[in-house]
Amino acid sequence: MALKPLVDSNGIHQVKGFEFSGIHCGIKKSAEKKDLGLIYSTQPNTHMAGLFTINRVHAPCVAIGKEVRKTQKARAILVNSGCANAYTGEKGMQDARELNAHLATTLNILAEHIVPSSTGVIGQFLPVEKMKAAFPALIQNKSANGFFDVAQAICTTDTFVKTFGKEITLSGKPVRFLGMAKGAGMIQPNMATMLAYVVTDAAITPSALQQALASSSAETFNAITVDGEMSTNDTLVLLANGAANNPQITETSADFQIFSAALTEVCDFLARQIVRDGEGVTKFVELIVEGLPHEETLRNIAFAIANSYLVRTAIAGEDANWGRIMSAAGACAARANLDVNFDHGSIFFNDVAVLKNGQAQGKEAEQKAAAFMKQGEFTLRVVLGQAPTRVRLYTGDLTAEYVAINANYRT
Amino acid sequence: MALKPLVDSNGIHQVKGFEFSGIHCGIKKSAEKKDLGLIYSTQPNTHMAGLFTINRVHAPCVAIGKEVRKTQKARAILVNSGCANAYTGEKGMQDARELNAHLATTLNILAEHIVPSSTGVIGQFLPVEKMKAAFPALIQNKSANGFFDVAQAICTTDTFVKTFGKEITLSGKPVRFLGMAKGAGMIQPNMATMLAYVVTDAAITPSALQQALASSSAETFNAITVDGEMSTNDTLVLLANGAANNPQITETSADFQIFSAALTEVCDFLARQIVRDGEGVTKFVELIVEGLPHEETLRNIAFAIANSYLVRTAIAGEDANWGRIMSAAGACAARANLDVNFDHGSIFFNDVAVLKNGQAQGKEAEQKAAAFMKQGEFTLRVVLGQAPTRVRLYTGDLTAEYVAINANYRT
Repeated sequence: MALKPLVDSNGIHQVKGFEFSGIHCGIKKSAEKKDLGLIYSTQPNTHMAGLFTINRVHAPCVAIGKEVRKTQKARAILVNSGCANAYTGEKGMQDARELNAHLATTLNILAEHIVPSSTGVIGQFLPVEKMKAAFPALIQNKSANGFFDVAQAICTTDTFVKTFGKEITLSGKPVRFLGMAKGAGMIQPNMATMLAYVVTDAAITPSALQQALASSSAETFNAITVDGEMSTNDTLVLLANGAANNPQITETSADFQIFSAALTEVCDFLARQIVRDGEGVTKFVELIVEGLPHEETLRNIAFAIANSYLVRTAIAGEDANWGRIMSAAGACAARANLDVNFDHGSIFFNDVAVLKNGQAQGKEAEQKAAAFMKQGEFTLRVVLGQAPTRVRLYTGDLTAEYVAINANYRT
Repeated sequence: MALKPLVDSNGIHQVKGFEFSGIHCGIKKSAEKKDLGLIYSTQPNTHMAGLFTINRVHAPCVAIGKEVRKTQKARAILVNSGCANAYTGEKGMQDARELNAHLATTLNILAEHIVPSSTGVIGQFLPVEKMKAAFPALIQNKSANGFFDVAQAICTTDTFVKTFGKEITLSGKPVRFLGMAKGAGMIQPNMATMLAYVVTDAAITPSALQQALASSSAETFNAITVDGEMSTNDTLVLLANGAANNPQITETSADFQIFSAALTEVCDFLARQIVRDGEGVTKFVELIVEGLPHEETLRNIAFAIANSYLVRTAIAGEDANWGRIMSAAGACAARANLDVNFDHGSIFFNDVAVLKNGQAQGKEAEQKAAAFMKQGEFTLRVVLGQAPTRVRLYTGDLTAEYVAINANYRT
């Protein structure tokens, strides 16, 4: 399947001091599909922040990425799609290190400043020699205009490329962000089978950069689910190279809030796109669960609802089956031993209640809800009490296409 | 869809002192589908044991069933399919009590000795008057031969009737068991959208009866999953009426072990049938997870593997994708903060290892595994360490048919 037309990135395709390259090196069978990408900062002093999967089964690239994060600096991201290099033991780790070392020599940078990323099938080794042989072409190809080539090279079962650009002004200087992501399946945070890279030319301290990334991802990349699966390879990397020449941002400077808000906007857009392009997803749902005092309880219940096979299939069928929603919530409470009374719940599709204070609102309300679902994008709000706390997730539906994609992924 | 031919119950269709009736009363649209059932003990001193859903959102029948359990006695089970009478508030409770009271008067037994059961759509009220009007026909129809009529009347999306019979000898007396169950979707224990009734003519104390039921269900009805969903209405009831005239069994009598083993056999058969008839299920998997010291850890990991969207779709596609299995295990460990090293795992399909001590065993092994999957029934064994502890679940695959059934359930 060819990738759908590119999503616009607000007309922004370049960020000062960053170069990009994406090519086909032969991991994917089709020569038309890019499978190797490079993001390169021309600035020696480029700060790096990152978040990685917490899955106890994780790929060597995740372990190496965390080592890079300790240095707080990175010059390059090397990414391949088609092979996750996960659960590949000692050899998998050696392969990743060898690729990093070879690229470092070729680019004349430090190996410990290269973040490796892999996505694809678990349990297969990388074709190391093939990849090394492709490095000269990869490097020769890099340019300030290559952003969309990398955005394509990271895709697996994605049907469209996910990018977002943003320009802001910090202390009188224009500062840019450019973000890309891939997703599709195995998508529930901490993180998802998600690779996402955001580059900015802002000057910002490493600790402020990491803090901004953590807070921006909490309500975006870490608040999505396509199938409740946590990947072995999830990686979110943020590079800031200072080429904008703004006064360096710290956690306490006024610019930090502006920077963080813009970063959140980039992450939010990409996170939504990941769900929209989730495998087999035909509905985009903004799920809000609110009214209990503890955010963690709300989050548990929200993920239980979002990942419920029966809720997801009901949404696919445009059926406002609130009984399944309450049942999923009640089951979550039982398993986590949460003391919650569900007797007076309310459930809204957009602004229409199908359940209000425990009372079913009848067929007409459900028909209105079905009409919202038919439109393909709606808010589902579950109110469990009076407390002002709420959590929000982005999720979708479960269709036969999801099954078809994942039953035949490796064949 | 008509129900498939009856599963044989070992030629056993009757148990002394029990009568059965199953009719159509009008809850289901098709007049050919039975939707109301009665199990009746002619013996005044019939002991009752039961297990019910722990979902915090549960139906009135579950609350009433627990009240009956406190009396340790029951004379009748009244069951309907097509409407779960769940999340129906005060009115739902009044409806259930009114039906019980009316049946008690008609049968001349105590209302507190009637176990009500409902299964079907959540959030709809029972057609109480229609059901009461059907009671005379229901009662007139009851006979020692009506077992299969009830087994049909409890079905919803089931495609075949699930029954099992067993005869044993206790202290020289023949003792019989006859069990029935319905399942199909919303199937993960504690319990499942599962109704199961087992009747026996054994004489046994109430406490021994409850203990036997709890231990028999732990490895059977509570070790299955079709979709990870916990129902609002799950009910497992065991009636023992003493008509076999065996010496009364207690927890310490030798007969208790024989009784429990036979009961486990009945429960195991029915639990397997529920998974085999799970919505859209085309593969029956006996999943064994072993090698870690704590059974609870193994059980958590086993359910995480069994309920993984990606594992279930891989099985549907006959793909021995062990990477997804290890990833699901690792994600479960991360979420539950379990200290487990997954680097040296082994995974077997029947006796063939596709992963051994952390090493992939190659394409030939995976092809053998695929051949086992193609047969439709196999053992999947995940070995995570050296400890002798193991847990076993019954589970299946996730197919497009599951989605189709559940996207259109209410329409």
